Amino acid sequence: MPDLLQLAARVREHIPLTRYMDFRLQEFAADQLILCAPLAPNINDKGTMFAGSQAALMALAGWCLTTLQAEMQLPDADVLAMQNSLRYQRPVTGELTIVVTSSAESLAHFRQRLARGERGVLEVVAEGLNVDGSVASVYQAQYMARGL
Amino acid sequence: MPDLLQLAARVREHIPLTRYMDFRLQEFAADQLILCAPLAPNINDKGTMFAGSQAALMALAGWCLTTLQAEMQLPDADVLAMQNSLRYQRPVTGELTIVVTSSAESLAHFRQRLARGERGVLEVVAEGLNVDGSVASVYQAQYMARGL
Repeated sequence: MPDLLQLAARVREHIPLTRYMDFRLQEFAADQLILCAPLAPNINDKGTMFAGSQAALMALAGWCLTTLQAEMQLPDADVLAMQNSLRYQRPVTGELTIVVTSSAESLAHFRQRLARGERGVLEVVAEGLNVDGSVASVYQAQYMARGL
Repeated sequence: MPDLLQLAARVREHIPLTRYMDFRLQEFAADQLILCAPLAPNINDKGTMFAGSQAALMALAGWCLTTLQAEMQLPDADVLAMQNSLRYQRPVTGELTIVVTSSAESLAHFRQRLARGERGVLEVVAEGLNVDGSVASVYQAQYMARGL
């Protein structure tokens, strides 16, 4: 099992903005990662979560998922965001829980590519959930990984 | 002319994450807004700009443009991000300059809607530029504005 505390510590060390956002990696199971962040450091003028914080947390969640998947195959991997899209459906009024995963098909292809020493592209999808379980935002993105 | 220093101060006051990102609003002319941010507070593990910082700065740039356009018509406006997409083309290796604008057609429709007391949707497009002028990222988004 990957060490989520260690990955979160690496992120905080190298990406200072993530310290401010106060995220944590909560669980990784069945190819699904859960990332949470509190409202207070990510609040906006309306007392809900800043759209930019949500976008940054989604970008981070997808990067962490892709890194976890790549590092189960490679000793060390470089992971880059390629593109993403985000739809805001309702305000985030408290802690945000992001559930990020990838399709089985994309993951199988990603693993094959990495196993052959090639660059792999992982398609990820995520939902941002309010405390009451309602879907606040929907994200999809592509990340590229390569061995170092 | 809108007061960009005042708008930036409002943003920093109400959205604490933006203080950390150290953005500034540089110019608003011909319906085009320029927002800049330094690399250091927005850096990642590769010594380039964190994809999440870029996403947050793009979200902010579009929000500021929509707010400026709405507040030229309304005494006070509430502006919400609806959806966005972002494509990363090359790494950001120093200060990021975001140039954000909207199509003339979208802006005309947005103004008509606000003038009738209705909600307006503005379609914005932005480029993220490196110091050498190369395009690092391309963004498109929709924001909704309404009078308060």
